[in-house]
Amino acid sequence: MSFSITILGSSSAKPTANRHPSAQAVNIHEQYYLVDAGEGVQQQLIRYGINPLKLRAVFISHLHGDHVFGLFPLLSTLGLYGRRTALTVYAPAPFGELLDCHLRYFDSDLPYPVLWHEVHTTQHELLLENRTLEVWSVPLRHRVPCAGFLFREKEPPLNIDKFQIAKYGLSIAQITAAKRGEPVALDTGEVLPNEVLTYRPYAPRSYAYLSDTNYSAKAAGLCSGVDLMYHEATYAASEQRLAADRGHSTSADAAKAALRAGARRLVIGHYSSRYKDEGQLVEEARQLFPATDAAVEGRRFTIEKTTAAQKQAIER
Amino acid sequence: MSFSITILGSSSAKPTANRHPSAQAVNIHEQYYLVDAGEGVQQQLIRYGINPLKLRAVFISHLHGDHVFGLFPLLSTLGLYGRRTALTVYAPAPFGELLDCHLRYFDSDLPYPVLWHEVHTTQHELLLENRTLEVWSVPLRHRVPCAGFLFREKEPPLNIDKFQIAKYGLSIAQITAAKRGEPVALDTGEVLPNEVLTYRPYAPRSYAYLSDTNYSAKAAGLCSGVDLMYHEATYAASEQRLAADRGHSTSADAAKAALRAGARRLVIGHYSSRYKDEGQLVEEARQLFPATDAAVEGRRFTIEKTTAAQKQAIER
Repeated sequence: MSFSITILGSSSAKPTANRHPSAQAVNIHEQYYLVDAGEGVQQQLIRYGINPLKLRAVFISHLHGDHVFGLFPLLSTLGLYGRRTALTVYAPAPFGELLDCHLRYFDSDLPYPVLWHEVHTTQHELLLENRTLEVWSVPLRHRVPCAGFLFREKEPPLNIDKFQIAKYGLSIAQITAAKRGEPVALDTGEVLPNEVLTYRPYAPRSYAYLSDTNYSAKAAGLCSGVDLMYHEATYAASEQRLAADRGHSTSADAAKAALRAGARRLVIGHYSSRYKDEGQLVEEARQLFPATDAAVEGRRFTIEKTTAAQKQAIER
Repeated sequence: MSFSITILGSSSAKPTANRHPSAQAVNIHEQYYLVDAGEGVQQQLIRYGINPLKLRAVFISHLHGDHVFGLFPLLSTLGLYGRRTALTVYAPAPFGELLDCHLRYFDSDLPYPVLWHEVHTTQHELLLENRTLEVWSVPLRHRVPCAGFLFREKEPPLNIDKFQIAKYGLSIAQITAAKRGEPVALDTGEVLPNEVLTYRPYAPRSYAYLSDTNYSAKAAGLCSGVDLMYHEATYAASEQRLAADRGHSTSADAAKAALRAGARRLVIGHYSSRYKDEGQLVEEARQLFPATDAAVEGRRFTIEKTTAAQKQAIER
């Protein structure tokens, strides 16, 4: 039941010798999702031990090259690897046209379908839902249509309290009903409310990816209570004007978004190539939001399970 | 008056954690030319100390993704760097259409023009000529239209023999005429043939890039006497059948091409991802052609100057 994020790219538009453009792998219950796909992402996946064939879907925040140029080589290589299952790419328009260009010139015989699911970047909408997960779009403020992504784990299945099974001598049928969330009627006629018999093993976890963007109180608000927020911090706090003009954020903006959301932890990245070392940016963010870490390629951020009670205690 | 080749990529279509797809930087008299542009080439240039702004032209052998996916991100980044001078890309059709797609969706406001010069892959034709260099196409045998590139340094300017200046008391005008290659008439009426007064400081150097291809005696023949040949060796000698079917070469094919051309040195590359270590491929090639080296990323192959007499002695 893992929930972790592996940083595959940490640079802004101009890569450096040591920093690749934006990309992350999100692992939720051993289902892998790629978030943005900067150049070189297929090699980064291999370097950090993630089999590219395991990708279940791809989320592209916006159509600037540093967030998408690595997708097309990856699509080609997945074909060489023999992928057969469809791959859905969640991206703003006109991604479909780009994809058509790529397929026409490079992959007219790709052995699996690539499906495009359009992301409407002005809306907070449910993009993907399965048994364990919901992924929502989060409108961002950039120079071109751009959306963040909010990964929300669903409530885990109820666990049954073994002490209560023994106490009431519950049958298999009664246990099954309790696990479904139902109250249980005893032979005595007494009805036990479900919450007496069951408990949630842990609180659902969540991750927000917010890049590229100016500070947006609205976006932060949509990520209320998130366990881990990634927020771009292209520039130092002193470059507020430049950041605003370019549709980007400073280290202080990122911290402000985490504060506003009531996030538990913050990771910053998308560093301008002018910062050889991201230490300054992290220190600045920590002044406002101490639980800040740096996106460093290969670093994995794991969101540990906590019970609902623990989570409430932490948030108090 | 440098003449060197820096290996930027050494893998075939599936990159590995340590090998990038095909790309090389050719430095001729501090003019840089990019030959193929696999994914990640912009970062590889930076890693190995080559300023991407210095590129004078790009040569693309064929339109398989592993030879061209790195070009588009590079074009974008050159725009961010503020390049203003035109960049010509020599590539087979329909490269122009690909370029149009890229420019339309990613770089509609690129601050420099990208020009396409079509390479006719069935012809051995002069693609580029300047004061010091000629670049010729070399038809190759691959699954799609594909050309190699032959870089031929022009004859260097004549040097004047200082001993003869003193001996005959030559004037500035007479020296200038001799440097232009003319015979010189002395005041005595005697006419000195130019070769008495001048010499070529070194023999013109040459480099052939042959990838991707089956073994081609014709291509090798067009590179006759080349100083350095790069030839793909995707597979080991035992995989002759597979190589033939896929439009690729084995280590032995590469050696055969170097022998056939009478090359002085051979570099092999474009290794299949099945070979974790290229040692086997190099050893096999060396059995036929001892002066074989491995393409390893970051390795620079310098073609040293030799006088025409030295070159003849070596070739004897």
